[in-house]
Amino acid sequence: MRFTVSHRVRFQHCDPAGIVFYPRYFEMINAVVEDWFAAMGMPFARMHGAEGAGVPTVAVSAEFPAASRLGDVLDFTLAVARLGRTSAELRIEARCGDELRLRARPVLVWIDAQRMQARPWPEALRGRIEQTMEE
Amino acid sequence: MRFTVSHRVRFQHCDPAGIVFYPRYFEMINAVVEDWFAAMGMPFARMHGAEGAGVPTVAVSAEFPAASRLGDVLDFTLAVARLGRTSAELRIEARCGDELRLRARPVLVWIDAQRMQARPWPEALRGRIEQTMEE
Amino acid sequence: MRFTVSHRVRFQHCDPAGIVFYPRYFEMINAVVEDWFAAMGMPFARMHGAEGAGVPTVAVSAEFPAASRLGDVLDFTLAVARLGRTSAELRIEARCGDELRLRARPVLVWIDAQRMQARPWPEALRGRIEQTMEE
Amino acid sequence: MRFTVSHRVRFQHCDPAGIVFYPRYFEMINAVVEDWFAAMGMPFARMHGAEGAGVPTVAVSAEFPAASRLGDVLDFTLAVARLGRTSAELRIEARCGDELRLRARPVLVWIDAQRMQARPWPEALRGRIEQTMEE
Repeated sequence: MRFTVSHRVRFQHCDPAGIVFYPRYFEMINAVVEDWFAAMGMPFARMHGAEGAGVPTVAVSAEFPAASRLGDVLDFTLAVARLGRTSAELRIEARCGDELRLRARPVLVWIDAQRMQARPWPEALRGRIEQTMEE
Repeated sequence: MRFTVSHRVRFQHCDPAGIVFYPRYFEMINAVVEDWFAAMGMPFARMHGAEGAGVPTVAVSAEFPAASRLGDVLDFTLAVARLGRTSAELRIEARCGDELRLRARPVLVWIDAQRMQARPWPEALRGRIEQTMEE
Repeated sequence: MRFTVSHRVRFQHCDPAGIVFYPRYFEMINAVVEDWFAAMGMPFARMHGAEGAGVPTVAVSAEFPAASRLGDVLDFTLAVARLGRTSAELRIEARCGDELRLRARPVLVWIDAQRMQARPWPEALRGRIEQTMEE
Repeated sequence: MRFTVSHRVRFQHCDPAGIVFYPRYFEMINAVVEDWFAAMGMPFARMHGAEGAGVPTVAVSAEFPAASRLGDVLDFTLAVARLGRTSAELRIEARCGDELRLRARPVLVWIDAQRMQARPWPEALRGRIEQTMEE
């Protein structure tokens, strides 16, 4: 089952051409991932705090088929395309109405924040991630 | 001939884990592209001003093989992998000393900023871009 | 009557010390102002679009009595301290629970976006702004 | 003696009105402060690393008398207005040619990053800061 959340394009996201400056899309994507982890019972505050962990993005590809403008509401969907022992590859899309605005494939790795080394997903979290797998 | 420029990792680029937050890498990549256009005689101020143009990034893929930290100097190299009639695919790498930190492949499109439509590269600019082609 | 809205401290707002990097507070303040104008029937998309206007911040002072951390929910309140012919001075506060985190006094000016010149607040908007005046 | 450094207005600093979005001015101000500490022999990487310290901004006021645009070179000057046992109040100005664009007064506090508590400036650093005092 996909995770869905909406974010509105704000003034701070837009460039002199009046459209979203693409590095801001990655801030939004990170916010969507943050929302997803919170929904799975692992808010970033706990992850980076008590859990001593982190989920850096080690690779990402993205396409922006159409521009987004100030005030647009972007409906994001997130699904897990591949779940490894320590990593996960996501499929994220954003639409405004019917129009596809963004397609991204970030690869996250679960790490021990002290050693900055990959480690296996915690069991309970892994179970939750599996529920967001693509069919 | 590749275009090269260095940028230092600043406080504003780093996250609570003490490493570069990846959307900030894309701000740096955009700055490198901006530096390159300025070096080719087409500073962004003129591009977005008198020229009535723009170079939105329509797709990008990136890998971050190793983390960057506050104070690191990143040596960027930029080369053109493919030059189309209205677009260009770049290869950008950043190293800190010998260590590869970032590899990115943005695709830019030259547009008419009013109509938000692709248009052919201006002749003089195209000649300059060709000088940055990969061998 | 004060305008109120809450924003959560996200990963993108935090610095290597794990607390909100203060320029990000100003992004949040701008978002609060944006939310307020939308609530008054003047969303930024319309303001910067059909209306041909803008509300640049020409001065601001702020204090940050206590640090904010990842995951904190900040409850913002906004009131108008002084309403001029073309400008408005706001009082914005943010609390996390009972703790004051931020107090800011931005001064906005309503401008004609083409000429970049101050102009009188539109009558209907002015009426709405008056409803947010401090008592 | 004042500390001086120049920063160019980049695409990432500008908003849909084509001028610097004011939270980005604070990113620039932070970069100027960072440059100043580096020049005093206390780069932020060492401050936040081996030194276990930090210099959060606890208050700031700023005015933006004229707008800045893409490509403008801003000449920053920084002077210390008041030096306390654990804090410092700065005067920062930015000009483009002869035109004043920004005047800011940030108050920094030297802290122990673990305890998040103010502590006295280290002696050597204090000596350097005194050399930047306003006459």
